[in-house]
Amino acid sequence: MNTAIISKEELLSHWQGHRTLTRKTIEKFPEQELFSFSVGGMRTFADLVKELLSIAGPGLEGIVNNSTNGYNHNLPLNTKEELLAKWDAETPKINELYGQISDERFHEKFNLFGEYEFPIIHNILYFIDNEIHHRAQGYVYLRALNIEPPFFWDR
Amino acid sequence: MNTAIISKEELLSHWQGHRTLTRKTIEKFPEQELFSFSVGGMRTFADLVKELLSIAGPGLEGIVNNSTNGYNHNLPLNTKEELLAKWDAETPKINELYGQISDERFHEKFNLFGEYEFPIIHNILYFIDNEIHHRAQGYVYLRALNIEPPFFWDR
Repeated sequence: MNTAIISKEELLSHWQGHRTLTRKTIEKFPEQELFSFSVGGMRTFADLVKELLSIAGPGLEGIVNNSTNGYNHNLPLNTKEELLAKWDAETPKINELYGQISDERFHEKFNLFGEYEFPIIHNILYFIDNEIHHRAQGYVYLRALNIEPPFFWDR
Repeated sequence: MNTAIISKEELLSHWQGHRTLTRKTIEKFPEQELFSFSVGGMRTFADLVKELLSIAGPGLEGIVNNSTNGYNHNLPLNTKEELLAKWDAETPKINELYGQISDERFHEKFNLFGEYEFPIIHNILYFIDNEIHHRAQGYVYLRALNIEPPFFWDR
């Protein structure tokens, strides 16, 4: 291993920057369309956000506690306010749990959710990539609803 | 700086994995829809791919050569075959240029394209995030066309 090109703290702040942008994207949706609109038979943006919520915090919890319990995307969040409140509640929890993973563990394999046996760094990159991926789908929904999405660089 | 949680080589292979998936996404589009279809008044997937092509290789070239020339998204690529050939031509070029950036430089600021003055690591993360973002929009276009996109984890 050579010089760190990204430190552990930098990766967290990169992630939290993306989470800020995802929060702004949720906010742009009208309440009704958040839970009902989609394109091409895909899931609604609320369902995509529930997937994100059921992966990030619970995934880190699994890593920190060495638990391989499965995930549950079907969270009981039925309003925009509830989604945003849960989003905000996860923010400090993510910081706290992430901080408990030692630098050395990032290259250890962990069987995330009892299904995804990869080095921890790959699982965490997956959390971030998957969030960018689904948020971008929300951008298309917003455009289809004639609503301007947040600027991609506004984190 | 502590232990490296991602090495320079790992970040490159992470990026090239995403590039492999983007290539598969291009391949899924029918020729005509690649250059004509979009949702909500957005750009076609061909135009989004041209943006990606005009950022990654040229951006690295700028970093390596300390050149702050601007970008040009309007590449003369008019068929799926031309897009894929350009995509493939960039693959080894990206490896080669990326390899020329020393680990120490990743935290130096660089005025990318004469416009984006950030540490080099942030610019490179932006290349990757922006690719995930636009590819995900291609996924929605494919779903709207009733075509199954590639698996997200298939890199």
